[in-house]
Amino acid sequence: MADISGEELDEIYAFAVNLGEEAGRMLMHGARVRMGDERVANEQEEHVQKENAVDLVTKMDDDVEAFIRGQIANKYPSHKFVGEESYSKGASRDYLIDDNPTWCVDPLDGTVNYIHLFPLFCVSIAFIHHSKPLIGVINAPLLNYFFSSCAGRGAYLNRTQRLPLIRNPIPPLPANAPSGCIFSCEWGKDRRDVPEGNLHKKVESFVNMAAEVGARAGRGGMVHGVRSLGSATLDLAFVAMGAFDIWWEGGCWEWDVAAGIAILQEAGGLVTTANPPGDYATAPIEDARLGSRLYLAIRPAGASATETGRQAQERTVREVWRRVRNLDYSRPGG
Amino acid sequence: MADISGEELDEIYAFAVNLGEEAGRMLMHGARVRMGDERVANEQEEHVQKENAVDLVTKMDDDVEAFIRGQIANKYPSHKFVGEESYSKGASRDYLIDDNPTWCVDPLDGTVNYIHLFPLFCVSIAFIHHSKPLIGVINAPLLNYFFSSCAGRGAYLNRTQRLPLIRNPIPPLPANAPSGCIFSCEWGKDRRDVPEGNLHKKVESFVNMAAEVGARAGRGGMVHGVRSLGSATLDLAFVAMGAFDIWWEGGCWEWDVAAGIAILQEAGGLVTTANPPGDYATAPIEDARLGSRLYLAIRPAGASATETGRQAQERTVREVWRRVRNLDYSRPGG
Repeated sequence: MADISGEELDEIYAFAVNLGEEAGRMLMHGARVRMGDERVANEQEEHVQKENAVDLVTKMDDDVEAFIRGQIANKYPSHKFVGEESYSKGASRDYLIDDNPTWCVDPLDGTVNYIHLFPLFCVSIAFIHHSKPLIGVINAPLLNYFFSSCAGRGAYLNRTQRLPLIRNPIPPLPANAPSGCIFSCEWGKDRRDVPEGNLHKKVESFVNMAAEVGARAGRGGMVHGVRSLGSATLDLAFVAMGAFDIWWEGGCWEWDVAAGIAILQEAGGLVTTANPPGDYATAPIEDARLGSRLYLAIRPAGASATETGRQAQERTVREVWRRVRNLDYSRPGG
Repeated sequence: MADISGEELDEIYAFAVNLGEEAGRMLMHGARVRMGDERVANEQEEHVQKENAVDLVTKMDDDVEAFIRGQIANKYPSHKFVGEESYSKGASRDYLIDDNPTWCVDPLDGTVNYIHLFPLFCVSIAFIHHSKPLIGVINAPLLNYFFSSCAGRGAYLNRTQRLPLIRNPIPPLPANAPSGCIFSCEWGKDRRDVPEGNLHKKVESFVNMAAEVGARAGRGGMVHGVRSLGSATLDLAFVAMGAFDIWWEGGCWEWDVAAGIAILQEAGGLVTTANPPGDYATAPIEDARLGSRLYLAIRPAGASATETGRQAQERTVREVWRRVRNLDYSRPGG
């Protein structure tokens, strides 16, 4: 596959932004129908409205994915499409992202939030080439937050607000990170109550990050705050804003993170693996592989008198690795 | 003190809404100065800007409280004023709220979020009479969410959207609550790593609520999601929206919750104590006392075929009490 020119990329970016707007309007319509603000458009919807919120949201998920997939197939028939549905249908044990131009889409991230109309839900659209997320669009319509980025063109909130929010200069990471940091994490769906299960490994890691310095055999991180929003993509967007310093999570699929990673990397953030390597203090810090299901993200960081932003990000990665457990998430059969 | 007429209450409500708008603008100005979007107004501010974010936010907290206190003293000189500052100065062991007309104000709730420019921060203004929060105003300016309520006049998001969001009819609580519920909680500032400290009691409670049904000696609650935002007042506002089903927290002061409680109660929610009584299955469920520092809030709930909304709320309170530990928060000397 040939490279994509700057002009082509601009065109794809404009198309992705437009798709994000349209899909966001669909999500908002569904929300407004449930709030009784908008009449349902036809009898079929009226029927659906009588079903419970979970069925309604499943239908919305399907409708928005079908819409986005159709628009892409029409405009860029040679591009690949990866979404939740394609995975469950394909059931491949392989990584889904390859060198081809690929759209990786979550029509509705933060599904539980959408069911409850907690505003932290969004549509998430990424364009990937040569396995690199080049374009990210995240539209959280009930929040009125629209994140977008394109490689080399900057990351933005609501079109005009460059990310991270504070950038003249970008603040350095705290010298004693994770102390002073906002730590974002998610409880996830794996709630098995077994000693070496993901729930207990996550909670042990959260408590290490939260506990006072010196506690827990030197693992106490005394983070400034622990936050859980219920949307991986929005967690990443808030890291790109600089609002969260650290996000650590396992279990996400490609479509849960692709757009968020595009935006965060374009803003200057770092994304690597959640699971600490054995030699966590010295191991090279590599970009997370899209599809690994294990992610640790650090916000964009400015230089201090003693280190570069990248050095501070790597220092923070190692301080997190020192405090967290290895999570058990793999690809089916992988 | 004489009763307040409906006309007087309307006037006080309009005044409180206006105060919330002005104070929100001050918080946004501070945020925009840090983002480099707005010039600082004078040399003093320029000096402050060179200090670190924490000092800057402390100054903002003081400035907004002084502004609100001054406006109230000017308009209603006979009314009491209760804020963070009044507590640290007074150091009384008594409850601060009595029968007098009282303003209870947090100029900046979600301070840690404001320091990091995570948008979940707000100004929170309550008007209380005969110990009842009658008016609540919460302005989260970077979120563009403005919550307001007045006793008997409804609770609103952004002036026109009545709360809870879904209300024709208001959905019942799940039959197997807390399963199916969004559970909101906060890690707080007490991070001591001691077995019977608040950190460990909170985490044990969180894990009980999250774990699969049947786990943890029957305490597994399998909630739909666990959320932590870092602002007690906004947690309560999201319960009033119906977005969170349950909020459980200890350690808050009057000003952290007064406006949120006003809005939640006006929307039809229930607020009682976080700490389970010994006879949690049968104990009467009383409204939380403002100042108790221990809160459990349940969202507005519609009736089902088998129970009223209030019955479902009380059932949910008991299911939470069955799963949580008693927290150690008291008033100084109390």
